[in-house]
Amino acid sequence: MIKQIYTLSEIIDEDLKRETLTETEKLKLAKEIKQILPDGYIVLAQTNPTSGDIEGNAKKALKWIKWANLLEAEAIVFPEMFLVGYPIGDFIDRFPVIVEENIEWLNALALKTTKTKVIIGFVEFNQSKKGKKYYNSIAVLYDGKVQNIIRKSLLPNYAEFNDYRHFEPSDVNSDRRVLNIGNKKAGIIVCEDGWNDFDFFDKNLYSFDPVETVVKEQRPNYLINCSSSITRAKKEQLKHNMLSFAAKKHKTPIVYVNQVGSGECLSFEGASRVYDANGNLIYMAKSYQEQFFIVNPFAAEGKIYPLPHGLEKTLTEQKAFSLDHEPDLERTYLTIIQSIKDYFSKTGFKRAVLGLSGGLDSTVSAVLLTDALGAENVFGISMPSKITSSESKNDAKMLAKNLGINFIEAPIKDMFDTTRQRFDSIFSDIEKKWDYRYKESFTNDNIQARSRAMILWGIANEFQSCLPIATSDKSELYMGYATINGDMSGGFAPLADVSKTKLFALARWLNKHRENKNAIPETIIEKRPGAELAINPKTGKPLLAEEALMPYEFLDEIIWRVENLQQSIKDMLSEEFLYEKHMKEKNTPISKLQKEEWLTKFFRRMSTALYKWSIMPPSPIVDARSINKSEYKQPIISSKINYNKTSFEEKLKTLS
Amino acid sequence: MIKQIYTLSEIIDEDLKRETLTETEKLKLAKEIKQILPDGYIVLAQTNPTSGDIEGNAKKALKWIKWANLLEAEAIVFPEMFLVGYPIGDFIDRFPVIVEENIEWLNALALKTTKTKVIIGFVEFNQSKKGKKYYNSIAVLYDGKVQNIIRKSLLPNYAEFNDYRHFEPSDVNSDRRVLNIGNKKAGIIVCEDGWNDFDFFDKNLYSFDPVETVVKEQRPNYLINCSSSITRAKKEQLKHNMLSFAAKKHKTPIVYVNQVGSGECLSFEGASRVYDANGNLIYMAKSYQEQFFIVNPFAAEGKIYPLPHGLEKTLTEQKAFSLDHEPDLERTYLTIIQSIKDYFSKTGFKRAVLGLSGGLDSTVSAVLLTDALGAENVFGISMPSKITSSESKNDAKMLAKNLGINFIEAPIKDMFDTTRQRFDSIFSDIEKKWDYRYKESFTNDNIQARSRAMILWGIANEFQSCLPIATSDKSELYMGYATINGDMSGGFAPLADVSKTKLFALARWLNKHRENKNAIPETIIEKRPGAELAINPKTGKPLLAEEALMPYEFLDEIIWRVENLQQSIKDMLSEEFLYEKHMKEKNTPISKLQKEEWLTKFFRRMSTALYKWSIMPPSPIVDARSINKSEYKQPIISSKINYNKTSFEEKLKTLS
Repeated sequence: MIKQIYTLSEIIDEDLKRETLTETEKLKLAKEIKQILPDGYIVLAQTNPTSGDIEGNAKKALKWIKWANLLEAEAIVFPEMFLVGYPIGDFIDRFPVIVEENIEWLNALALKTTKTKVIIGFVEFNQSKKGKKYYNSIAVLYDGKVQNIIRKSLLPNYAEFNDYRHFEPSDVNSDRRVLNIGNKKAGIIVCEDGWNDFDFFDKNLYSFDPVETVVKEQRPNYLINCSSSITRAKKEQLKHNMLSFAAKKHKTPIVYVNQVGSGECLSFEGASRVYDANGNLIYMAKSYQEQFFIVNPFAAEGKIYPLPHGLEKTLTEQKAFSLDHEPDLERTYLTIIQSIKDYFSKTGFKRAVLGLSGGLDSTVSAVLLTDALGAENVFGISMPSKITSSESKNDAKMLAKNLGINFIEAPIKDMFDTTRQRFDSIFSDIEKKWDYRYKESFTNDNIQARSRAMILWGIANEFQSCLPIATSDKSELYMGYATINGDMSGGFAPLADVSKTKLFALARWLNKHRENKNAIPETIIEKRPGAELAINPKTGKPLLAEEALMPYEFLDEIIWRVENLQQSIKDMLSEEFLYEKHMKEKNTPISKLQKEEWLTKFFRRMSTALYKWSIMPPSPIVDARSINKSEYKQPIISSKINYNKTSFEEKLKTLS
Repeated sequence: MIKQIYTLSEIIDEDLKRETLTETEKLKLAKEIKQILPDGYIVLAQTNPTSGDIEGNAKKALKWIKWANLLEAEAIVFPEMFLVGYPIGDFIDRFPVIVEENIEWLNALALKTTKTKVIIGFVEFNQSKKGKKYYNSIAVLYDGKVQNIIRKSLLPNYAEFNDYRHFEPSDVNSDRRVLNIGNKKAGIIVCEDGWNDFDFFDKNLYSFDPVETVVKEQRPNYLINCSSSITRAKKEQLKHNMLSFAAKKHKTPIVYVNQVGSGECLSFEGASRVYDANGNLIYMAKSYQEQFFIVNPFAAEGKIYPLPHGLEKTLTEQKAFSLDHEPDLERTYLTIIQSIKDYFSKTGFKRAVLGLSGGLDSTVSAVLLTDALGAENVFGISMPSKITSSESKNDAKMLAKNLGINFIEAPIKDMFDTTRQRFDSIFSDIEKKWDYRYKESFTNDNIQARSRAMILWGIANEFQSCLPIATSDKSELYMGYATINGDMSGGFAPLADVSKTKLFALARWLNKHRENKNAIPETIIEKRPGAELAINPKTGKPLLAEEALMPYEFLDEIIWRVENLQQSIKDMLSEEFLYEKHMKEKNTPISKLQKEEWLTKFFRRMSTALYKWSIMPPSPIVDARSINKSEYKQPIISSKINYNKTSFEEKLKTLS
């Protein structure tokens, strides 16, 4: 009977998106739902705010609040920081007017509230003469007023999180954290406040656990956690285990409301949920979409919408590097799609133009853009040079046809020739003053890549709301194997956090799971990657990426070990790589010397790639760790780091 | 008599830089100095580390320590974080091997110590199961051992500072912070630990003052502050007042040792110093260079090397926006020069190539590069298009001649024509599918800017150790008046934190104060800026920047108000701008409507410029606040921020 609610509430979802219902229909639907619902129900407002668009966020909140009022729900709960939108970068520091505005919009919203309690995240001024300017706070609004304010205590300040830059940490103040919702007492937790259980974690970042304090001091009937927590590889398992553990430990249900949608590089998957007092998951909202989700923390008849495939796997199953990336492909796909969609819509762009080389990177990019923006909004340009093979040209054409996207072929021969001619005369002039000319250079490779980017940016200049796409992948970015103002240049870079071996797996997954099956020509997945910018003198054929770099299987495992295990060269030399195992099985084992050479090459190339990372366009964070600027920053001048531990004796000798 | 020391110690400086002395000469010099010096002298090691180059930093430290040992100085004091180098970004988080290495190098250094106490900054592991991974610590080494470790308590986490991302704040532990140096007791303070005096600041970031704790609990005879504190407009005045205030308040001399040199975007000016117990400045080291500086906190016969012009001005004198920027030009010049020098040397580059347009930005860039790298290492390329005036071409040529830099002229007509032709055919193909073509576009402007960048990057590909230079200035970056992959693209951007009105003042200053007087042709300073990329249909002449944007004098004051006063549109409407005053004096007053239009235009353009900021090359931070990525970050998706406060009534109406 209760389950009927979920069918009916999907009509509310539809109305919230497209305003499908008249006032009368709304009242009728509300009545219908109220008849089924016993007391004690609250609404999880799993919403997608836009950073800084306070008016837009406030208007969205009001639409949701009005629905909750209509249903006479006990309460409606929004994510952390909803009014200002998340992420915020440093804008509240530079423009205090934004915070003044969010306070006024909060007060205006409060005037619209009834008995239904509204729990919503905003930014509060710190009026004290000590500490940072602001608090990261949750307001409780009802009966036309702001009735209570809860301040976040634990302020994450690692990776993509910068809370401590702007907010003053608050004491727990457990008495302020509780409120009556119906006949139950709820305790409010703000995101990171719920991530410091001393029994669950081996190592804790903070010295106290606000959850424990609230439970001990206030004995609430259940806890509500307002969050803006991003999706990353392996994080869902950790989150699930942790929330379930805490619910069980404290013998209290936990209601967890998470933001959905993407903001520049950060993606929130939603998947708001409820655990009962035994730690069992009893409700789970949809992933990667907004949802008006009706729950009762004390009724086990909840709806559990499924997580994207793979997310249900436990943490321990993913501790080794693998090549199929099987558990993570659907999440990767959904994260990137949402990220493209939201980046375009939140910045006002509608269309994408990209170069189609017939290679894996541009191919997968095209598929993802098609699914995010619609085929009619994607333009693929094949821009062959004399090195481009006819197979590549055909593959590009075939792909565009399969996807139904717009396509033209525009050879770059004339641009290349004219530029080369111009360069020849300039270089010979410069040589008269500077005798530093390289014997061999990447100049020709780069003219091709840059001519192509010139065309894509030209199209973006000429056609409305159009962004050029940078197609570089994570493996190549680590190696600096990307051309400045060339393939790494664009308005958005969908694959910058996807390694090459994962891209192969993703291409196969797309062919299998998209409605339009096998859109990616098999030849594209099967050919070995290469930029087709230069000829390998040894083979007489276009230089392959693995000839210029190292086997991708090996490279991607280095990346994985650096990001997930923080290993040094010495650490990696002492452990067996998957590629080593595979080669041993094939009776062509990798020598220690070869392994050392690749490892050294990796760190040498990475050091010179730092500049490229610093000028990469925005791109979705996907993996557990990334080199995305909004998460990780290393000074470009740090090129002399020794990633290989030397012995103490060597050091002493050097210092003599 | 004591003053003789400073002449002799300059020989030590010379030896530390170029290893000019034999062992016998060193012993002789040391003997000479020791004869003059009474007891109680310590050495301030004002040094320039390289981020992550622990071996290099350790070797440098050893050279300095050996000299201090030779002189039998009581102690030698290095800056905060010296061993790892500063800034660090996030590299110690991603690569713990770096921290392991810095511990081993510290232990190796300790073995080289004698009775002379070495006080040096490094990164320490936090062994506890709670808190962040590391401490920002100072080691005290002598008699062959690490004898004591002091941990920083106040961890700055605003603007360019990210201490709290990586370090656990420590209790003051005042007993660990004191050590005997000769017959005096010194208390150790680590940078920000000294910036929280409750009597000096109106608003304090932290809840306690480590200086007060150390003074009250330990009664040291003097304080030593190990710092890595960057130079910014107005900061010297604040620092001087604060340190002098604290010395006087606590009746104890303060020895302040600061890092020198630049790391990517951050510049340290050195100017290490000593205040006596009455708050009088009694010693000041050189600015913008390394120095082995011998001081006695209890002897007023100190040497005070002068600060760059302007830095001695008091804070209050600079509260209004001015056009001459007089007090800050020498500091600006020295900061940028040091920044170019260190960026090039620390990344292994030697030469720069830049486009010379005959405009102000490229002109001032060329002068600064010449002074930083030497004329022989700079190549200016004039790349005229059909819009370039013959005056501009002549100005560029004349400038290059005056500076003695390398120069060629390379017209871009062929590249422009071929690209335009290619574009025409592509655009007409695309138009068949997409009817979104703009009636007017910036395509032609951008082809010119991008062809020029293509040439500069081509030269960098072809000639060793050569970086192309991006010449965009701060005013234009705020307005997004810079071409992606064009003039804003490069390996380094010397002027990105210098506004246009300041650039004019700087150009005049350079002509007056450089040894080579009037290198910049007067015509360049006098002509009104314009990109010479398009013709203004109204005038038939190249479009001027102020026609496309707004008067620079007005624009730069908006920037100044946003950065220094955090004003909103409403705030700025209620105050008179310098430009308004000037125009009123000329009997051509600015209407309120016009002012509103410019303000709105500023914020609208700024919102769409955020993407450009995110892909700007590294550049020196100069002003009190900047839009440099290492200091300020705003999500690109935040384009819907309303910078103009609306009334509460309007808000309510919108929410109905």
